[in-house]
Amino acid sequence: MKHNKFDLLSLGEILLRLSPPGNERLSRSDVFDKHIGGAELNVVSGVSMLGLKTGMISKLPDNLLGSYAGNQVHFYGVGDDYLSLDREKNARLGIYYYESGAHPRKPQVVYDRMHSSIQSISIKDFPEEMYHSTRCFHTTGITLALGGQCRETAIEMIKRFKEAGALISFDVNFRGNLWTGAEAKECIESILPYTDIFFCSADTARLTFQKEGSTREMMQSFAKDYPISVIASTKRTVHSPKKHSFTSVIYDVGSKTFYEEEPYENIEVVDRIGSGDAYIAGALYGYLAYGDCRKALEYGNAASAMKNTIPGDMPCSDLKELTKTIEEHRQTGELPEMSR
Amino acid sequence: MKHNKFDLLSLGEILLRLSPPGNERLSRSDVFDKHIGGAELNVVSGVSMLGLKTGMISKLPDNLLGSYAGNQVHFYGVGDDYLSLDREKNARLGIYYYESGAHPRKPQVVYDRMHSSIQSISIKDFPEEMYHSTRCFHTTGITLALGGQCRETAIEMIKRFKEAGALISFDVNFRGNLWTGAEAKECIESILPYTDIFFCSADTARLTFQKEGSTREMMQSFAKDYPISVIASTKRTVHSPKKHSFTSVIYDVGSKTFYEEEPYENIEVVDRIGSGDAYIAGALYGYLAYGDCRKALEYGNAASAMKNTIPGDMPCSDLKELTKTIEEHRQTGELPEMSR
Amino acid sequence: MKHNKFDLLSLGEILLRLSPPGNERLSRSDVFDKHIGGAELNVVSGVSMLGLKTGMISKLPDNLLGSYAGNQVHFYGVGDDYLSLDREKNARLGIYYYESGAHPRKPQVVYDRMHSSIQSISIKDFPEEMYHSTRCFHTTGITLALGGQCRETAIEMIKRFKEAGALISFDVNFRGNLWTGAEAKECIESILPYTDIFFCSADTARLTFQKEGSTREMMQSFAKDYPISVIASTKRTVHSPKKHSFTSVIYDVGSKTFYEEEPYENIEVVDRIGSGDAYIAGALYGYLAYGDCRKALEYGNAASAMKNTIPGDMPCSDLKELTKTIEEHRQTGELPEMSR
Amino acid sequence: MKHNKFDLLSLGEILLRLSPPGNERLSRSDVFDKHIGGAELNVVSGVSMLGLKTGMISKLPDNLLGSYAGNQVHFYGVGDDYLSLDREKNARLGIYYYESGAHPRKPQVVYDRMHSSIQSISIKDFPEEMYHSTRCFHTTGITLALGGQCRETAIEMIKRFKEAGALISFDVNFRGNLWTGAEAKECIESILPYTDIFFCSADTARLTFQKEGSTREMMQSFAKDYPISVIASTKRTVHSPKKHSFTSVIYDVGSKTFYEEEPYENIEVVDRIGSGDAYIAGALYGYLAYGDCRKALEYGNAASAMKNTIPGDMPCSDLKELTKTIEEHRQTGELPEMSR
Amino acid sequence: MKHNKFDLLSLGEILLRLSPPGNERLSRSDVFDKHIGGAELNVVSGVSMLGLKTGMISKLPDNLLGSYAGNQVHFYGVGDDYLSLDREKNARLGIYYYESGAHPRKPQVVYDRMHSSIQSISIKDFPEEMYHSTRCFHTTGITLALGGQCRETAIEMIKRFKEAGALISFDVNFRGNLWTGAEAKECIESILPYTDIFFCSADTARLTFQKEGSTREMMQSFAKDYPISVIASTKRTVHSPKKHSFTSVIYDVGSKTFYEEEPYENIEVVDRIGSGDAYIAGALYGYLAYGDCRKALEYGNAASAMKNTIPGDMPCSDLKELTKTIEEHRQTGELPEMSR
Amino acid sequence: MKHNKFDLLSLGEILLRLSPPGNERLSRSDVFDKHIGGAELNVVSGVSMLGLKTGMISKLPDNLLGSYAGNQVHFYGVGDDYLSLDREKNARLGIYYYESGAHPRKPQVVYDRMHSSIQSISIKDFPEEMYHSTRCFHTTGITLALGGQCRETAIEMIKRFKEAGALISFDVNFRGNLWTGAEAKECIESILPYTDIFFCSADTARLTFQKEGSTREMMQSFAKDYPISVIASTKRTVHSPKKHSFTSVIYDVGSKTFYEEEPYENIEVVDRIGSGDAYIAGALYGYLAYGDCRKALEYGNAASAMKNTIPGDMPCSDLKELTKTIEEHRQTGELPEMSR
Repeated sequence: MKHNKFDLLSLGEILLRLSPPGNERLSRSDVFDKHIGGAELNVVSGVSMLGLKTGMISKLPDNLLGSYAGNQVHFYGVGDDYLSLDREKNARLGIYYYESGAHPRKPQVVYDRMHSSIQSISIKDFPEEMYHSTRCFHTTGITLALGGQCRETAIEMIKRFKEAGALISFDVNFRGNLWTGAEAKECIESILPYTDIFFCSADTARLTFQKEGSTREMMQSFAKDYPISVIASTKRTVHSPKKHSFTSVIYDVGSKTFYEEEPYENIEVVDRIGSGDAYIAGALYGYLAYGDCRKALEYGNAASAMKNTIPGDMPCSDLKELTKTIEEHRQTGELPEMSR
Repeated sequence: MKHNKFDLLSLGEILLRLSPPGNERLSRSDVFDKHIGGAELNVVSGVSMLGLKTGMISKLPDNLLGSYAGNQVHFYGVGDDYLSLDREKNARLGIYYYESGAHPRKPQVVYDRMHSSIQSISIKDFPEEMYHSTRCFHTTGITLALGGQCRETAIEMIKRFKEAGALISFDVNFRGNLWTGAEAKECIESILPYTDIFFCSADTARLTFQKEGSTREMMQSFAKDYPISVIASTKRTVHSPKKHSFTSVIYDVGSKTFYEEEPYENIEVVDRIGSGDAYIAGALYGYLAYGDCRKALEYGNAASAMKNTIPGDMPCSDLKELTKTIEEHRQTGELPEMSR
Repeated sequence: MKHNKFDLLSLGEILLRLSPPGNERLSRSDVFDKHIGGAELNVVSGVSMLGLKTGMISKLPDNLLGSYAGNQVHFYGVGDDYLSLDREKNARLGIYYYESGAHPRKPQVVYDRMHSSIQSISIKDFPEEMYHSTRCFHTTGITLALGGQCRETAIEMIKRFKEAGALISFDVNFRGNLWTGAEAKECIESILPYTDIFFCSADTARLTFQKEGSTREMMQSFAKDYPISVIASTKRTVHSPKKHSFTSVIYDVGSKTFYEEEPYENIEVVDRIGSGDAYIAGALYGYLAYGDCRKALEYGNAASAMKNTIPGDMPCSDLKELTKTIEEHRQTGELPEMSR
Repeated sequence: MKHNKFDLLSLGEILLRLSPPGNERLSRSDVFDKHIGGAELNVVSGVSMLGLKTGMISKLPDNLLGSYAGNQVHFYGVGDDYLSLDREKNARLGIYYYESGAHPRKPQVVYDRMHSSIQSISIKDFPEEMYHSTRCFHTTGITLALGGQCRETAIEMIKRFKEAGALISFDVNFRGNLWTGAEAKECIESILPYTDIFFCSADTARLTFQKEGSTREMMQSFAKDYPISVIASTKRTVHSPKKHSFTSVIYDVGSKTFYEEEPYENIEVVDRIGSGDAYIAGALYGYLAYGDCRKALEYGNAASAMKNTIPGDMPCSDLKELTKTIEEHRQTGELPEMSR
Repeated sequence: MKHNKFDLLSLGEILLRLSPPGNERLSRSDVFDKHIGGAELNVVSGVSMLGLKTGMISKLPDNLLGSYAGNQVHFYGVGDDYLSLDREKNARLGIYYYESGAHPRKPQVVYDRMHSSIQSISIKDFPEEMYHSTRCFHTTGITLALGGQCRETAIEMIKRFKEAGALISFDVNFRGNLWTGAEAKECIESILPYTDIFFCSADTARLTFQKEGSTREMMQSFAKDYPISVIASTKRTVHSPKKHSFTSVIYDVGSKTFYEEEPYENIEVVDRIGSGDAYIAGALYGYLAYGDCRKALEYGNAASAMKNTIPGDMPCSDLKELTKTIEEHRQTGELPEMSR
Repeated sequence: MKHNKFDLLSLGEILLRLSPPGNERLSRSDVFDKHIGGAELNVVSGVSMLGLKTGMISKLPDNLLGSYAGNQVHFYGVGDDYLSLDREKNARLGIYYYESGAHPRKPQVVYDRMHSSIQSISIKDFPEEMYHSTRCFHTTGITLALGGQCRETAIEMIKRFKEAGALISFDVNFRGNLWTGAEAKECIESILPYTDIFFCSADTARLTFQKEGSTREMMQSFAKDYPISVIASTKRTVHSPKKHSFTSVIYDVGSKTFYEEEPYENIEVVDRIGSGDAYIAGALYGYLAYGDCRKALEYGNAASAMKNTIPGDMPCSDLKELTKTIEEHRQTGELPEMSR
């Protein structure tokens, strides 16, 4: 049996996130908290913290900001073998500005990610052996929606990884500020034939893919149209910017089984950014480590619930912590408040 | 038709506010967060952020602290044409210390505002044309209650602005640490004959002005006694220092119409100071920009709810944000969590 | 009548507490908030802030960290007459790391308190007159459970203070990471014959002391077996890491009376560490200042509820604040939000 | 005599500056200090703080970052009448990252200013009366070197302001990362015929304009070729990143007089960015307020020396402070350390 | 021989000091560093840190700011037996704002200390036994120069302490913003007959007391006119706000001996405020602990040099540190850089 | 030719460093800056940043602090293959507290590193293939001096790496608080027969090894006694805690050549900790990458000079930066202040 260097490789943009501290506003304040994020990086860093081998495929400017991003990638134990450097004079790291909300003030995002180094990413930047180095490849609709050569490169990579025998994981992650629903639908439908694990919320299924019926019915519809093995759909209830509930459904197509569990209720949200990506990290971990959709469900839900309580984009929970969270989520009755 | 330089001028004290960060206590900690506030400044800065032309009438010490206050006034786009400078050797900027609460610990305020520069403010400090430069003049009971020449100057200004054709807006803003209810009643009743827009909470109407009956009845009683055009009364429900609900009633005397709307429920309070002033800012904006009490109600309530989520005394929402908040407040059903 | 120098002396370890700010994680972040704590110090500092004379009996390393601890002891007005210095080369201040939680992430503690200076504390480090200088002596099960000479010294001190006529106060404060329930039971039962005031939660009574029945029945059982005058048992309900409710029962053995009151509901928890110790501080204050178990109950509950809203280990409320909190807790109907 | 609304208008880009605190590195750290800068804004804010009426001509994105920039422009009392808003979807605020140095580590700058809103600035964005509203118009070689429509707009504005009777002030401010020396020479020589006040360092005169001889000779050469009235050349000596000396020469062409003074020696550099712009602010203030090249020299040198001691890009000294600095610079003998 | 409770009591105002961090300006920035200071408190806290028993005589407002001041007094181990509380409604803690300098920007101070609680201090606030509780009493010209009842109370205390047998220590500490040189001279000459230890710089001797000649001659002149035992005069050389040199002369009148030593050269100044008071702390420590003017000189110089390197007003060096500093100051040749 | 996985492996303790910010003192302040360091980790992280493959051999507690240390190791790109975990209940991360100095206040260190996880490190914790995975193995006298099984393990590893063909690099790094000179001499002499690259300052050679004569003579003496290939000796001149000069001598034993260069003068010291280790990192980089003692000298000196300007223990310069620093160090004449 082949031994892969990586359990998971992911292609996507690495972004600098700048946020005013606490509940301050972007239009005031003297400082920014500085984080690194990006939907795909959030996924691989989450999987890495849980103990699998991961690597990030991306392109960074060859300057001190690119170094910062690279150092943070290292921090989370993610491999940098496929981080290519953009040595163009005006190479830039994409940025987004985020201010958190407090009811009735909603969180706000300002993107400044155009013209960034990722947009010149090319299939030629990476060696052929990359495609044979991993058990699973993950990317998202964001990468497809970015300008430049991102879409072309992403689609080509999906095909090559598929051909090399890797599982293909894809998260729709629809962003209305990057493309229209119609564009998204057309493009994503072109890669669904290659997709093994598919993440798509009920809202997106309905609004972007014009699916109808219940969540379960929409999942079945995708499974009928494409050779997908696993479909996952998250359900977040936003009581306020500081209080959410979260759960998900996973459909194991082979066994025609739906997996669900009670939601994590009244999550005390510290930073909700990246909690969807943390779900994918948990779910991929569960699936890759155990080949089991129930594990995928449990690790996905727990990882997402936990991420909401952690500042920044990236999950920061190890296996011991998530496993314990899952156990306590299953228990009923009063739990000890902390262990000491 | 006359074109005024300002939509709103306001007379009042500009204070330095010093607060320990987060939930720290005044009696400990190594730092203070530094803000500028004051009931009247909060109102004009709020109106300025919404797009009308405003200016502040006040007196500041001619030292680096006065410069700080002046710079902050600029920051919010408020005109400094009528900020006079106190060049006395011991000129001082009034201060208040504020520590926020967490149930069952209540927020606490320590005032250190005596002997401040505003107390020597005089009608002679300002040119005659000032009275003809604005559509509306606003002040509060705090200014009447301050020592020195504040009261005399404020009353004289009310009369002169009225005579020059400006709308007179007055907020009772009763502060038991500055004067007694009886003093307040007597003084304020002397200026009500000049008042067009009157802000008075139900509690104050009852306790200070000895009104009786329902909020609506008390508002009608004021309207019967004085030639007021618009009376507004806010209703804040304090579930805890970190959770409030807020709404208001506006009585349009001419049309004998009461305007009300559903409260903003479960506001996640970050900093409640200035949320009453933000209400007035929103309401004056609505009234001055649209001449419409419903708009006054909606902008007032939204501005106050939003201010509770923003650190410091001053509102920091622009028109786009408040308008969107109003729209979402009117909607029913699930709303998108954020736009991206 | 004898006039004691101290109302309360307490023996215990003084620890450095290091916490990442806000909701950050121990495994990341660039800074630590730095606090001093320790179950017994928390008690004496709380009593000191309420106006009684207190002192701490402990051993600190003779280095800059020991100086920091000593300075903080001073800050809270606690006497340092019986802080002995450890001049050994490797003398160390015990440490614990604490990260706060947000549902479903629980608070976490990492202890690093072995080999600290307190472990070499000896009865010989303190003068004989110490035993005659106080009305009350307090220590906890933590001190008994620490390694080195702590247990032996603590037991000997209990006996000497008792003999000298001081009230003996003891808090079980069971910590599973320091000893087993069986060890705790055996050791504590050996000092219960000397104990006047006994703090033990219902859970500990049941799990550690194998008591059965209701809280009241378990308290009666202790009173039957040992010559204890006052038994107190707290009841904390943890809705989430950021929301608790709290109350307690006190059993006045002499009058066979149980004292209880309505819980403080929905406490907005800023920092729950030390809230149990704050309860003891309030209860001892009430008992020592008024000789009244109802006062002990009221000050204990109020002190604990308030501590939950204050960063760090140590209570920081004065008598005026607690007394007002108690009054407001007793009232029904709407209360003013703050006084100004 | 005509009364202008402004003493000085300036065209240029407003940039967000992000710096790690203290001596931290861009490639690490959790926070960025957040400043607003830009060569031309630094000049007008400096002149504004000294008491003249100024305004900024620029284009900002219509998002929260643009609001931040606008608020900061207000803070320094600079008029926003000619700040146009870029409502394009990908409108962006240019950024530069700056880390300060410590010998032998040099300060480092990373620019990310391409594709910013200023690049779409057009002569059509501004009303015709703008050209008649000011005594003086200032811009720099940076604006000419930026991409997009900046150069064209800048050159056209120079001509229109000149035609409307304003003094034209121009600072070469050569930046090798924006254009080559040859490009700069050609472009700038095309606007020198319109220039009244010309700022050009000796190095730039030599390297970019191929002038030869001493500083004075090069200045005379410019004066011979173009109808310039005043030429200023700064001289900074960099002992280390934390210690500079600074002085300048001003050539009054009409009277053929050179003005010089002793350098400010051993300036304790806190933040050197913007100290060249502060020089121009001081010099323009001296020239516009007094019409006197000696005043220009003195205020220029003092403003620059002082700016080096102030964090951020923008000068923050008022007239009283600079005047006192000039007096003390002139004095010999021991000076009082501070006044109290 | 009588055993005094205190070695040193001091009368003076306790001030809140507010400073922008690092090299920021008072007229900007979002935070203030918060310190407690005051010339006399700086002296007693310095002496306390060196191991003698000290106490502060002052009056604080009975509010959270007064509690803050009191807690800080405790922190430095200074006794609070004679801190009286001002329960007046407008009781206030005096404030001063301080921004540090960097050449050529000088440090700046803005005082806001009028109408503070100390101004109502009265001889009646303190018990008669206070005068018999200390070996030495210290106050300064600042206390005499403050308004209200300070001067009267100070003069009366000097007399009563003298009568009770305490040494009287007095520091001129002339502040031109509080009184004129003539007022100072007249007032201080009235208390010099009671003074045992007199601190007066050469500049003050010359400018305020119209002394002539060398420092030594002026000291001798004071000794001739008044029954002073010890006269000390400091000499600070200010190379820049960040670099000073410091030494002093002490004249032992009894033995007609002058003590001097080499200056501490090139002190790297972090915060110069309070370094003069630290000198007095060191000198009084040396004199009170050893009765030796050489020790007074050495501890005074070392304490002052060290204070310059410590943020805030108050010295924070213990005896071990100062003693080692003195030893190293005496040595020649290369010294180890640090001990580890 | 064999291809090694690592260029450099190093054995040593990883320590948590806690420092008050800026010039604050350990005995005060509310926060600690949090760093990871340790002589050997500083070396490998420095070499890693320069582009070679490195790994750390150490033992960390299996708790959140160990995770923090591990994450930081990742951040600098150092391999964690040989970080073993200590799962004992009281496993701890060693700590040191550091406060920086300002003349005449010296930097101070308080160690709290006893009983840490490294002390149970054993040769059995590591696989046999480790010895064949690297070109060079480095450790220091600190590891030999630590308690527990460190010395035994270190000596055994030196022998096994040597046997496996790795270069052995050893830094004496004498610490008087860990062992005596005599102990150090005896122990280190036992491993010198295995040492290829030897770092020893002239002071240590003289005081610990009783060498005599000039630096060069002492180096020759070591070379005579032991089969060492390269001997390096640093020379730091401490003008003040904030200003150092630095250079070194390297003796290439084979060619009997001494390499020296002009010192880096007047380094503006931000944080001197780890600058000696940075020297070794630079020197090993130069030697391993180029096999050239001149390169070792140049990279060593530059790395050390640069590290002094960077906060924390670990170097943070990449190859581009150091190479440029070396070039500028070689140049004479005026250099550009920064590039933009």
